Amino acid sequence: MARDASRRSRRQARGGPGLKQLPWRQVRNPYSPIEVLSADQIEAIHDASMTVLEEIGMDFLHPQALAILDRAGAQVESGTQRVRFDRGLVEEAVAKAPSQFTLHARNPEHNVVIGGNHIVFATVGSAPNVSDIEGGRRDGNFRDYCDLLRLAQSLNIVHLMGGYPVEAVDLPPATRHLDCVRAFLTLSDKVAFSYSLGRTRIQDGLELTKIARGIDEEQLCREPSLFTVVNTSSPLRLDGPMIEGVIEMARRNQVVVITPFTLSGAMSPVTLAGALVQQNAEALAGLAFAQIVNPGAPVVYGGFTSNVDMKSGAPAFGTPEYSKAALASGQLARRYGLPYRSSNANACNVVDAQAAYESEMSLWGAVMGHANIVLHAAGWMEGGLTASFEKMVLDAEMLQMMAEFLRPIEVNEDTLGLDAIREVGPGGHFFGAAHTLARYETAFYAPILSDWRNFETWEEDGALDTTRRAHRLYKQILADYVAPPTDPATLEALDAFVARRKEEGGAEAA
Amino acid sequence: MARDASRRSRRQARGGPGLKQLPWRQVRNPYSPIEVLSADQIEAIHDASMTVLEEIGMDFLHPQALAILDRAGAQVESGTQRVRFDRGLVEEAVAKAPSQFTLHARNPEHNVVIGGNHIVFATVGSAPNVSDIEGGRRDGNFRDYCDLLRLAQSLNIVHLMGGYPVEAVDLPPATRHLDCVRAFLTLSDKVAFSYSLGRTRIQDGLELTKIARGIDEEQLCREPSLFTVVNTSSPLRLDGPMIEGVIEMARRNQVVVITPFTLSGAMSPVTLAGALVQQNAEALAGLAFAQIVNPGAPVVYGGFTSNVDMKSGAPAFGTPEYSKAALASGQLARRYGLPYRSSNANACNVVDAQAAYESEMSLWGAVMGHANIVLHAAGWMEGGLTASFEKMVLDAEMLQMMAEFLRPIEVNEDTLGLDAIREVGPGGHFFGAAHTLARYETAFYAPILSDWRNFETWEEDGALDTTRRAHRLYKQILADYVAPPTDPATLEALDAFVARRKEEGGAEAA
Repeated sequence: MARDASRRSRRQARGGPGLKQLPWRQVRNPYSPIEVLSADQIEAIHDASMTVLEEIGMDFLHPQALAILDRAGAQVESGTQRVRFDRGLVEEAVAKAPSQFTLHARNPEHNVVIGGNHIVFATVGSAPNVSDIEGGRRDGNFRDYCDLLRLAQSLNIVHLMGGYPVEAVDLPPATRHLDCVRAFLTLSDKVAFSYSLGRTRIQDGLELTKIARGIDEEQLCREPSLFTVVNTSSPLRLDGPMIEGVIEMARRNQVVVITPFTLSGAMSPVTLAGALVQQNAEALAGLAFAQIVNPGAPVVYGGFTSNVDMKSGAPAFGTPEYSKAALASGQLARRYGLPYRSSNANACNVVDAQAAYESEMSLWGAVMGHANIVLHAAGWMEGGLTASFEKMVLDAEMLQMMAEFLRPIEVNEDTLGLDAIREVGPGGHFFGAAHTLARYETAFYAPILSDWRNFETWEEDGALDTTRRAHRLYKQILADYVAPPTDPATLEALDAFVARRKEEGGAEAA
Repeated sequence: MARDASRRSRRQARGGPGLKQLPWRQVRNPYSPIEVLSADQIEAIHDASMTVLEEIGMDFLHPQALAILDRAGAQVESGTQRVRFDRGLVEEAVAKAPSQFTLHARNPEHNVVIGGNHIVFATVGSAPNVSDIEGGRRDGNFRDYCDLLRLAQSLNIVHLMGGYPVEAVDLPPATRHLDCVRAFLTLSDKVAFSYSLGRTRIQDGLELTKIARGIDEEQLCREPSLFTVVNTSSPLRLDGPMIEGVIEMARRNQVVVITPFTLSGAMSPVTLAGALVQQNAEALAGLAFAQIVNPGAPVVYGGFTSNVDMKSGAPAFGTPEYSKAALASGQLARRYGLPYRSSNANACNVVDAQAAYESEMSLWGAVMGHANIVLHAAGWMEGGLTASFEKMVLDAEMLQMMAEFLRPIEVNEDTLGLDAIREVGPGGHFFGAAHTLARYETAFYAPILSDWRNFETWEEDGALDTTRRAHRLYKQILADYVAPPTDPATLEALDAFVARRKEEGGAEAA
């Protein structure tokens, strides 16, 4: 038994016997961020967004929020849901947010630090469809949901579950969250996600998390263990179920990411500067609200400004405008000393070259914008309408490459290699040099998906393109998957909670 | 006639009637470069590379070079081709190189500035094979050579011809350069390339360029009009034909790019720092040599450090190591005040997701390393073994996206959009706002290849992946191609020169 468990745990650390991936580790970005705006321009955007909150205001579609904000000194317009904020109030509230905190996973080795120069990558979240080459594009369902969790659990570069990777639409809406969160907590031991679809779902998610981690309410409130993303209903509105999520999560010291979905030309001005003004106003209003609910609660500044295709109105992602907005949003988040969330987005219908280049444009914007959480980092397709198994593997490769890119070049007497250059001399070669032999096994990044064989060998071996290789790899990873160990008593308690809450009818419609 | 010519020239500016691409313009990079090394680390690499040149030295495989270097004060080891350089000699020579210059095209509108924050993109060069979906992978030939030139001429984002995009192996080696350069100068009016395969080929290339531009020797020597790439034969050797190229080009004030091919683990140390030391030593030795030949001649610091796959010894490109080396090389070039050359490389066998993500890793390294010339920017596959028509179109899209990424966000009262946000207010939408209507046609980058339609529409329209769309697009561009106008007398003079030189037997074997 003990031997089996140890073998199982070794296998698990490698993500299955066949996959030679990078070990789990939290990535840090040692390089200076790319700044696409000057300090003056950042101040101009800040100033304009403060004017938006002071003069135009934002609608908070929940009486409890209006009461809280009124008490805190915001101007709630009588008879409406419009709230105007003095800039002093916003800045003072936001200044109370921590610049760095730890998110606690069921497996403490999978805890992650959010903030500073740390960066974590999360799965795709909330796609209504799922796809792979074999089964094609299909409605989201619980079976694929679980397989996507298994795949994400197996990939060390995926640090977090960034929402339900796909909607399990075959499960009843009122109790879906119970099955889905239970799956998070048994198929994976990484940090999980809770949807801000009203108070009940959040409460259920937190109870299940407490059971899985074996902790009480006091420890939960000391150790953020779950995170949620609150999208504003742009322009300048925050919906009721989202507001309940902010209140419930912030009150219990859990992580709230506020992300305006400011699609330039549709839900925000057609100019990038204008879209950033609106994003900043909406994000700061939400963040200030969370800090008013519970000063010091862990929050994250979310940026998701992209643009529409002006011919069709369709949203576009991974565009040049998107990359610039991602970098500018990082500058804004840093101005307020807040952790920053970005995404790995694309608008492509098939896992191919466009999917890759749009993702890379997003990733470079996120990484060099010093994003601390990259949501939708693995598996996102079609502007979020589909979660793809092959794309999750493709993304894992691209994320691993980013992680290795962020390992600084070592410069010291040994690595400068003068002795090796002397040994080999003009016209020689380094394959057999002592300096090479001592290092060749670990000198360079070894890919999981890229094929570097020559054309002839690759062709003889079936001429599989990258997406077909990703398909084969994801199948192999699922075949090798081993669930993280769960104590039988914990499993029983999780099941009992789910059964009881199902009997009670689950959650209200959101 | 006049009307036809004007229509033709309008059509040409757009690259054919069907292609709605960005207008020709030289790109500038307004952002600070990514620096992966500290100033101290750059100095350590500089210092070690000077030690290499002082203590180990470099082989110059041509008696003329040895004589020139001996006269200039370098230590030529008696009875060998080994040259050792005092660091003072190297630094003094390199300091004479201009930090910026203009390359003159046949069409003055296609002149390009090399240096400063300017960046230009060149075609793939020197691939032995060519490929497209329809014809598959085949030996290089003159017909595909010409079609690749036509495609590159039609794509505004391709600023230069970076060598023969594919080798026309169906033409006799002794006279191939005559046909190929003539094709450069008639199918395109952009800056062209000359191979440093001995003195004769360079001389023929320069004579043809003078005829095409209608200029005399004096003007040619005042206006750099052709460029060449000199690869060191790493480690630490410069071959005879390359040396003749440096001498002939530098003497006549034409552009010499010195690029060591320091593949880490094979032709250079297995550590990135060591590979950069060797790259820097080889590049500076070649650049110093060019400056000794003709002080002030336009030269470019080339960086092409990548790594091998240590399992197979195969070269890899667009790796995390490659991106870091590209950024570090930019830092080194700037240390010496030299323009910098990088590449858009990948090691993929098929135009797919891997080709795109490896290219993006290369491009971000080049662009954010402030490369001034990006060679192989359009059409390079398989580590340089194949030129691909579809990849050239895919690259054009990725390059256009980079060019747009490098256009700074405009921040002013108008773009901050407060009036638009006021007009629309909470819960509205911006499609119909005056601010949107005034700008929507030009607000965002419009792709040439990306497909942003929804899944259903895309599927009904044939579900073409990006590579298949690139195929269709390249065929359409070739069908729409119109050659740039060439004066009949010029054409006659070019043909007469080619005929005479063919009669004389062309060039010696290189």
